[in-house]
Amino acid sequence: PSGNEPSGNEPFSAPTLLLSAAEADTLRDNLMQSPRFQRSLAATEKKVIAYFRNPPDVPQPTDPGGGYTHEQHKRNGVAIHDAGILYQITGNEEHAHRAVALLKAYADLYPGLGPHPQQKKQAPGRLFWQSLNEAVWLTYAVQGAAAVWPRLSRAERKHLESGLLRPMAEFLSSGQPRTFDKIHNHGTWAAAAVGMTGYLLGDKAYVEKALYGLKRDGSAGFLKQLDRLFSPDGYYTEGPYYQRYALMPVILFAAAIHNNEPERAIFQYRDQIILKAVRSCVDLSYNGLFFPINDAIKSKGLDTVELRYGIAAAYRLTGDAGLLSIAQNQSAAVLTRAGFETARAIDQGLARPYPFQSRVLRDGPSGKQGALVVMRDGSEIGHQALVFKATAQGMGHGHFDKLNWLFYDNGHEIITDYGAARFLNVPQKNGGRYLPENQSWAKQTAAHNTLVVDQRSHFDGKRTKADAAHPHLTFWEQNERIHIAAATMTDAYPGLQFQRTLAQIKGPGAGPPMVVDLLKVTAKGPHQYDLPLHFAGRLIASTPRLVSETNQLHPLGQSAGYQHLWRRAQAKTREGRSFSVTWLHGSRFYTYTTLAERDDTLLLAELGAQDPDFNLRPQQALILRTAPNRGNHTFVSVLEPHGATSAAEETTVGTQGRLRSLSRITRGDLDLIQLASHDGTLWYLAVSHDARADQRHQISHDDTTFTWQGFYGLFNHQGETL
Amino acid sequence: PSGNEPSGNEPFSAPTLLLSAAEADTLRDNLMQSPRFQRSLAATEKKVIAYFRNPPDVPQPTDPGGGYTHEQHKRNGVAIHDAGILYQITGNEEHAHRAVALLKAYADLYPGLGPHPQQKKQAPGRLFWQSLNEAVWLTYAVQGAAAVWPRLSRAERKHLESGLLRPMAEFLSSGQPRTFDKIHNHGTWAAAAVGMTGYLLGDKAYVEKALYGLKRDGSAGFLKQLDRLFSPDGYYTEGPYYQRYALMPVILFAAAIHNNEPERAIFQYRDQIILKAVRSCVDLSYNGLFFPINDAIKSKGLDTVELRYGIAAAYRLTGDAGLLSIAQNQSAAVLTRAGFETARAIDQGLARPYPFQSRVLRDGPSGKQGALVVMRDGSEIGHQALVFKATAQGMGHGHFDKLNWLFYDNGHEIITDYGAARFLNVPQKNGGRYLPENQSWAKQTAAHNTLVVDQRSHFDGKRTKADAAHPHLTFWEQNERIHIAAATMTDAYPGLQFQRTLAQIKGPGAGPPMVVDLLKVTAKGPHQYDLPLHFAGRLIASTPRLVSETNQLHPLGQSAGYQHLWRRAQAKTREGRSFSVTWLHGSRFYTYTTLAERDDTLLLAELGAQDPDFNLRPQQALILRTAPNRGNHTFVSVLEPHGATSAAEETTVGTQGRLRSLSRITRGDLDLIQLASHDGTLWYLAVSHDARADQRHQISHDDTTFTWQGFYGLFNHQGETL
Ligand SMILES: [Zn+2]
Ligand SMILES: [Zn+2]
Repeated sequence: PSGNEPSGNEPFSAPTLLLSAAEADTLRDNLMQSPRFQRSLAATEKKVIAYFRNPPDVPQPTDPGGGYTHEQHKRNGVAIHDAGILYQITGNEEHAHRAVALLKAYADLYPGLGPHPQQKKQAPGRLFWQSLNEAVWLTYAVQGAAAVWPRLSRAERKHLESGLLRPMAEFLSSGQPRTFDKIHNHGTWAAAAVGMTGYLLGDKAYVEKALYGLKRDGSAGFLKQLDRLFSPDGYYTEGPYYQRYALMPVILFAAAIHNNEPERAIFQYRDQIILKAVRSCVDLSYNGLFFPINDAIKSKGLDTVELRYGIAAAYRLTGDAGLLSIAQNQSAAVLTRAGFETARAIDQGLARPYPFQSRVLRDGPSGKQGALVVMRDGSEIGHQALVFKATAQGMGHGHFDKLNWLFYDNGHEIITDYGAARFLNVPQKNGGRYLPENQSWAKQTAAHNTLVVDQRSHFDGKRTKADAAHPHLTFWEQNERIHIAAATMTDAYPGLQFQRTLAQIKGPGAGPPMVVDLLKVTAKGPHQYDLPLHFAGRLIASTPRLVSETNQLHPLGQSAGYQHLWRRAQAKTREGRSFSVTWLHGSRFYTYTTLAERDDTLLLAELGAQDPDFNLRPQQALILRTAPNRGNHTFVSVLEPHGATSAAEETTVGTQGRLRSLSRITRGDLDLIQLASHDGTLWYLAVSHDARADQRHQISHDDTTFTWQGFYGLFNHQGETL
Repeated sequence: PSGNEPSGNEPFSAPTLLLSAAEADTLRDNLMQSPRFQRSLAATEKKVIAYFRNPPDVPQPTDPGGGYTHEQHKRNGVAIHDAGILYQITGNEEHAHRAVALLKAYADLYPGLGPHPQQKKQAPGRLFWQSLNEAVWLTYAVQGAAAVWPRLSRAERKHLESGLLRPMAEFLSSGQPRTFDKIHNHGTWAAAAVGMTGYLLGDKAYVEKALYGLKRDGSAGFLKQLDRLFSPDGYYTEGPYYQRYALMPVILFAAAIHNNEPERAIFQYRDQIILKAVRSCVDLSYNGLFFPINDAIKSKGLDTVELRYGIAAAYRLTGDAGLLSIAQNQSAAVLTRAGFETARAIDQGLARPYPFQSRVLRDGPSGKQGALVVMRDGSEIGHQALVFKATAQGMGHGHFDKLNWLFYDNGHEIITDYGAARFLNVPQKNGGRYLPENQSWAKQTAAHNTLVVDQRSHFDGKRTKADAAHPHLTFWEQNERIHIAAATMTDAYPGLQFQRTLAQIKGPGAGPPMVVDLLKVTAKGPHQYDLPLHFAGRLIASTPRLVSETNQLHPLGQSAGYQHLWRRAQAKTREGRSFSVTWLHGSRFYTYTTLAERDDTLLLAELGAQDPDFNLRPQQALILRTAPNRGNHTFVSVLEPHGATSAAEETTVGTQGRLRSLSRITRGDLDLIQLASHDGTLWYLAVSHDARADQRHQISHDDTTFTWQGFYGLFNHQGETL
């Protein structure tokens, strides 16, 4: 049965969503086995008791995101969930009363609501300004309802069903067909809410719509989402910030499907795609925080409610002890059977370090739309990590940063991405939504560490054009000496192609790996090329000296993000010479050396111009800029971490980098990068830009011949392969 | 016997400095009682073994602070100490060989050295650019020498004595009489080095010079330093950053005195002044870091080698379990008996939270040169703390910031002090010494949160004038409702007096305390008054709206620090209206409301102008500025922390402050501050500015009469005392 009338049959008198009655009994009996789980249970109980000290307000919806009614309804949804689950686990009747009272209040309120007064261009909700929040609300509340369902009278069930559950599920499905059938996390949330409501009410039509789309034909719905949202490697095209968010309804709904219809083997679906998506979230993090690519709030990471559910589910499925160390750093356990088993395993000392390693995450449903490459040197806290973003655009939240890179070291983000310009949930800041500067700055190419041509963004900052193109990962290899990846991009600018090779090399000389960056542009010109490098830290020295603007600042440009950059300093150098800049961040020094192909300019820019509402964070960038008359051009740069300083111990060592000089020798399409260190070691990285493994290449320099096969060769000064 | 000839007698064949042979034996026998101590011992042993893997370089001194020879000699001095102490505790002969080999190398090198080639205006050393480092070096090395002394032959002792210990001790004492007899931490280090050498060599003359000065008459020396360096409350006039530094030789030398001549009762001296100085270091910290007043590196705090020795010594003397929680957050235990006892007590679970509380620390040797007032609301991590700096100038490292204040909350510095402009030990940054911007910015009044008159610093930034004056603390009281302090300053500007009252008030309305700031200027004028507020966080909103400079930035002035401030935005308001600015820092919001007495201007400034070498950190300040025609003037401001935001939990509450309006009513010298909160509560703070407890005062407003006795009264809207 479907529609607005309560169903007559009651097949699920003790319905199960994430936690069955039997499981709850087992948890209750075994609580003593996990102090960690007990702490989370106690913390939730304390929070719920405080919340229900007075009957919670169920206000008429009026406010936008971050406003009172918005936050209050969000809180109420979570409170229904928490009180219900607490009742299930503890058996305390008071918790059941709490959940039921709130559910009834919503069943009274909801039928009278029209579209939310604060609706924007997003699909509007009734309780909330956007229906997305409404789907999230129902996903939580329906779990609370399921928990108390066995103790409700028939009349009470009917009240909730006809006043709240069905109207809301209808509104989220047939009430907004475009959103419900969209392959997008808004659609996944709607599917989860409607499908879980279906399991509660025993309404197969809801479940089938959730799984297969409104038409129930598989053209949309949850399974289609699992097919399309993630790449075969479990990468979500919007990037990890939204991957985390997209995972939540996936994990919750999958758990409900698993518990109700295990024969669907949902966690095996598409070669365990859900598990892959959880793991790739972890692999897309450093020091607990996600790589902030595309629209991303930078403080988000592995200690979020989504990953608490995700890691617990993945641990329960796999028993992988590496996942426990991730869960161990989360501030709470989730109140499910998976959460209990994870917490107990941690309490038993079973956690092992998560084996972070270098990997390629292909993008696109078939894995053919570029890739994100993560190179790591070690896996311990403070290891060096390089992120090479050669992915597709990532839909509406994508940034125009083809072949961008990020760099982490010593626990810090060193070469940075601005992330999103947004104060999440702060009403005074555009209602908590994305700020205008997200478009004018954060998405623009100049806000990233990649090629900008003629001070215009990739695809001129137009999403429709960007959606139609993607980079190609042309090469990837890792071994003990070197991790190296290369990608090309052809349609970011008309008639122009650029390719980038990024390598993490252990040498020359002792110390942490150096990063070599080789970026080649092929075009007719005339063009001006900018290569920005956004770095975190305090400038220590530069060669040649940067000449500062000390008495006035002006923006670097008028558009494409340049209007937000103050021109702070500049330096010029001659062909074949290099710029070298050293900065200090955390307890370590970093030196960036970049070769001037002709008479180039190095600019230092500070973020903050054209920012009337103080929406932008302070940030700085070096920009290597060519004259405006270039066609083909090659950028060669090296980044090296070095030395250490400790204020507490008053010790400082290694304030100078190892690299003495950097140069490039060419022959046709071949490049030979010479790295000379202060200790006299001379290394050469040769790049053919030709991934065919059987092709031999040769280049000579200073009476030495360097011969290699395939994409690259790494040599000592005698031309011997390293 | 004194002079350069080795002494014939050998009264201390097993000399004791910090650790006696018997104590070392006891530690060795009881190591198992303290895993924490064992870890520090093992870490030191590992470091020493790595350091001596090849014979350490003992280079000809050539480099300034942070340079290779400077750092290498520092490392060698510590290595002599560490190897010696390890030998004492472990009995491992190899450690003794290591210490002796290095000592001999120095005994060969030292006699041939002249003044250091990198000497500046500071007293030069021979191994180092300044003799201070030399005294520190000897203080460490002499402990290593004492540890191995019993196993040296007579000839070896003579070699070290005549080649190193006596020449260095002579150089540090009679070789630089002005520094040795100076009441300053440079003098204390010299005294410690010379006195400890005296104990080692059995040379009473060295000990007496160290204790009583070169003339041995008590006009200088260690005891005079203890009399003069600290106030009766244990406050060191330069502030906690240098207090920590000054404490190190005090603690080390006192321990040596205690072990050699317990009858001197050095730890009882001047009513336990050493212990008071250690405790006040702790009281001058927040979240483990020192209040960064005067020339201070902001990353310094309680986890420093100085405080490791200091806390251990204080715990051994007092058995105070609160000190153990401080030691518990230090990353290592010191290798002394005190260090062992402290570590063992922590291992035994005896640590208790340190009872942080509000207190007044008087400044000056007699406690009559102003005071530093610390107000705390609670003592747990994240408690609110207010620092009111009404101290004397603090000698050459003092800043021109009379009646400045700082504010901490939720684990962060919210109202900030820039600290020092210095990259400690980084050679590229002025050799690791103070930067020019320390003088041009960090010391200037505009870099602080206090009154600036006519854009000139207090005392026009001249130390000699500043040394001659100090504020007077006129009132201080704390109770459950309010912590309140007041101070006056008369000579910072000719013909002008200003007084400030700072109060932490619990109310009106629920929530954390509000800070009320009442600053009154008495002068003939015409003057322009600036009240800067340096705050950490991101601007959320302001009323009236701040109008931004979006297309160009210019400095706010030409001198006194203003040349370093970009004028970023401004707002104007009318008499009796207030400015209100809200920002977000960490997970909490802060709203600063300040009343415009007449038509005043609010400026927003950003630090960074006139900074050719990128020496300044990004920082921002609000500046409330009057028209340039004022005589008497009163500033009234309120700061309130409110709300919370969590990106991980996606929750945000309380983004608006509680204060609805702020106003001031006057009658003669009396001030009545009205605080109206959004929840309708109306509170009044009445201030007589008259500390006499028996004086009655009265002021009326809106048909209500407020009557109080003494300095202040706190009332509800009916005029009833709270
Ligand atoms: Zn971005
Ligand atoms: Zn200062």
